[in-house]
Amino acid sequence: MEHTEYTIEEMDKALEETKKQIFELLEEKKYFQCRDELLGCNEVDIAEILQEVEDEYGTQKALMLFRTLPKDTSVEVFANLDVDEQVAIINLITDPEIQYIIDELDFDDMIDVLEELPANLVDKILEKTPKAERHLINTFLKYKEYSAGSLMTPDYINLKKEWTVREALDHIKEVGMDSETIYTCYVLDTGRKLIGIMSLRALVIMDDSLIIGDIMREEYISAHVDDDQEELSELFKKYGYLAIPVVDNEGRLVGIVTVDDILDVIEEEATEDMERMGGVIDSDDKDYLDLSVLGHVKARLPWLMLLMFSYFITGGIIQSFEDALSSVICLVTYMPMLMGTGGNSGTQASTLIIRGMATGEVEPSDALSVIWKELRISLIVGACLSLINYLRIAFLEGQPPMVALTVCVSMILIVIVAKIIGALLPMGAKLIKLDPALMSGPMMASITDMISLMTYFSIAKALLHI
Amino acid sequence: MEHTEYTIEEMDKALEETKKQIFELLEEKKYFQCRDELLGCNEVDIAEILQEVEDEYGTQKALMLFRTLPKDTSVEVFANLDVDEQVAIINLITDPEIQYIIDELDFDDMIDVLEELPANLVDKILEKTPKAERHLINTFLKYKEYSAGSLMTPDYINLKKEWTVREALDHIKEVGMDSETIYTCYVLDTGRKLIGIMSLRALVIMDDSLIIGDIMREEYISAHVDDDQEELSELFKKYGYLAIPVVDNEGRLVGIVTVDDILDVIEEEATEDMERMGGVIDSDDKDYLDLSVLGHVKARLPWLMLLMFSYFITGGIIQSFEDALSSVICLVTYMPMLMGTGGNSGTQASTLIIRGMATGEVEPSDALSVIWKELRISLIVGACLSLINYLRIAFLEGQPPMVALTVCVSMILIVIVAKIIGALLPMGAKLIKLDPALMSGPMMASITDMISLMTYFSIAKALLHI
Repeated sequence: MEHTEYTIEEMDKALEETKKQIFELLEEKKYFQCRDELLGCNEVDIAEILQEVEDEYGTQKALMLFRTLPKDTSVEVFANLDVDEQVAIINLITDPEIQYIIDELDFDDMIDVLEELPANLVDKILEKTPKAERHLINTFLKYKEYSAGSLMTPDYINLKKEWTVREALDHIKEVGMDSETIYTCYVLDTGRKLIGIMSLRALVIMDDSLIIGDIMREEYISAHVDDDQEELSELFKKYGYLAIPVVDNEGRLVGIVTVDDILDVIEEEATEDMERMGGVIDSDDKDYLDLSVLGHVKARLPWLMLLMFSYFITGGIIQSFEDALSSVICLVTYMPMLMGTGGNSGTQASTLIIRGMATGEVEPSDALSVIWKELRISLIVGACLSLINYLRIAFLEGQPPMVALTVCVSMILIVIVAKIIGALLPMGAKLIKLDPALMSGPMMASITDMISLMTYFSIAKALLHI
Repeated sequence: MEHTEYTIEEMDKALEETKKQIFELLEEKKYFQCRDELLGCNEVDIAEILQEVEDEYGTQKALMLFRTLPKDTSVEVFANLDVDEQVAIINLITDPEIQYIIDELDFDDMIDVLEELPANLVDKILEKTPKAERHLINTFLKYKEYSAGSLMTPDYINLKKEWTVREALDHIKEVGMDSETIYTCYVLDTGRKLIGIMSLRALVIMDDSLIIGDIMREEYISAHVDDDQEELSELFKKYGYLAIPVVDNEGRLVGIVTVDDILDVIEEEATEDMERMGGVIDSDDKDYLDLSVLGHVKARLPWLMLLMFSYFITGGIIQSFEDALSSVICLVTYMPMLMGTGGNSGTQASTLIIRGMATGEVEPSDALSVIWKELRISLIVGACLSLINYLRIAFLEGQPPMVALTVCVSMILIVIVAKIIGALLPMGAKLIKLDPALMSGPMMASITDMISLMTYFSIAKALLHI
């Protein structure tokens, strides 16, 4: 095949072109031409196309196309479908077809599918599986969600320490096809305890007669089955490995996690943080369009409700200053600006701190240097904003100088307090083991709102004698 | 070495323990014991420890420890230091030491260091480099920041299509040590044009006598040197590859990008999005604590300033309704709640849409189904919030029913408009090639603030006849 697309944009265009063609062929019911077009694509792209066919023409049509694929391609494509589509297909195809797919899928992909199926269907599928494998599958199904155990695969290559490099390579040649990765191999003792790792790179480069036990790397990084996926992804980022072995309480190797699964974890964790910062509670890892209206309501209403109660307090603060406000009604004009600037200042600080803690750079123990930094930043920022406001209020709007002064003094104080609280809140949350991301955005804004109003009204009372 | 730490937490604790010990040894000036402790650690951890030594005791002390390391370890450690520390060390060590480090670093790490050094120092270093390599280095230094070209390395393995598997493996054995990855090899024609790829897995598993040209994969994914790193990371996530080849306009292979560099890109892109959503403009890829006070001011003041101008408009809206407000002063009490809820509702929608677009799930072409979804969500959410407010305002606070009704009708309308605008703004931004992340958080809030006030006051005027 001659490649004529060099940029990613050109590749995307070519894929869109293929999709259009397939859709046209489908309309004309030319299924076998469709199939030929599909087979020119990468399995990942075929899965994407099938999903769009399902959205457009329904599951039956997608299934029909799926069935025209050669058996081994169909398994690869199946592994790349979204979980919803996988379950939809499983529910429509025959038992032998299900059995074939389940048998041929990589172990970790199979576990992902089984986790989504109803228990009775899983039992039916597992009936025909050999006892030893059934036992293994059941163990894997029991690992906690978001743990290293739930991400790993048992399809790794293990070597014996008394083998030569040549023997190891021959072993890999024999079993390498079924393994998730062959690029890192694991050396186990007789009790299946991990005693060393060996990269395929070293095996290929080193002399054939060397003994594995002499050349294996005995210092390695491992994780425990119960370790959280977020911590695991930190290890991958920090050390740059392609795979990390996962051990149980006795140090026995139970599986490995490969870097391609970690790409998704990093993205999921960032999504979770962003959603929490944006005041969305838990979208169930579902995509925006896939989540139902009620699911969206469930993810959003509790936060809005909680925040609304905080506005009841804000409202109370205003009420208690109502007399002062009605005597100088123009003070109301500047309320949104002061509250808004306070919220924005706080959000800036908390965003930077939350991200700093997520990437491991800022720790709660840095609190003092963070406060000192935020204090200096907010003095400069507050002064700039105040100056502009003084000019505008006193000269452009012609308000009494004391009103302008009230706004300006409040502004500086609000920016300082908001920035320091914005930085400290996420740190405090981390100390008490809450997710720092909960402490930004809307949460932040409603706390600074109260502080801003109290500050503003107190200063107004003092300076304007109202 | 016997491993007794199985969980990531235990490993972290052991590392902290080692750090403490090294710090104590440093205080007692036992440098060689320090060195022995250090050498028990992974290179990545040594780099981390040196950085903490620098923070605590200054660059001189860190440099002293750095110099006690064996030469090959020291290069590995150097590659894992932050850029600031790398430059600090380069500025303090002798020319032969610099030359040694530069020669031994992986090509892509070397380019990263050179990019940070002042031009005259780079020229001095390159003086002693062979002409061909100097030319290559200069080419790499010219690739745009954040492009595929800036991430790639030229240290890949290339094979000839007429070779046998055995010949290929022998070639890899010979040159594999200096290559960034040997797990994917590239088949080039005589014009250095990429014609196929070959995984080491296939080479190791397949028969020795097969010919590369017959078994290589001719359908592969490639990127162009000018492609953006964000698009490139999408390719890695989508197809799950360990490395992606990078070609020029003529399809000639110029380098490869490996997955370990992409982990950082995914994180950087998420950080950038979060910062923009949190109203921080550009932190220069610097960590929170490393960025100076003025740097922070530069990253935050422009946004605050811009948003403040939007509050001038909000203030103007309030001013024009000042008479109405002073006649029913209690309306002021509910202003923060309505503005806040509007902002929060909009932020929720925009956060979900921005993230959906970043992960490739939502497209601007989905606008209609997004509007329809947001409309239904906001009707339910708005109705719930209004009901609670009606009960509170009319019964708990004993305000006139018409005031309660004003607030409730405004609430529903504000939630609907805010959610739809919140969803559409980021999509619009993407259409005109602006970063959608700029359209959330503070930006969103200031737009919904204006809409909320206008809605509230108009309804108040109509219902309360003021």
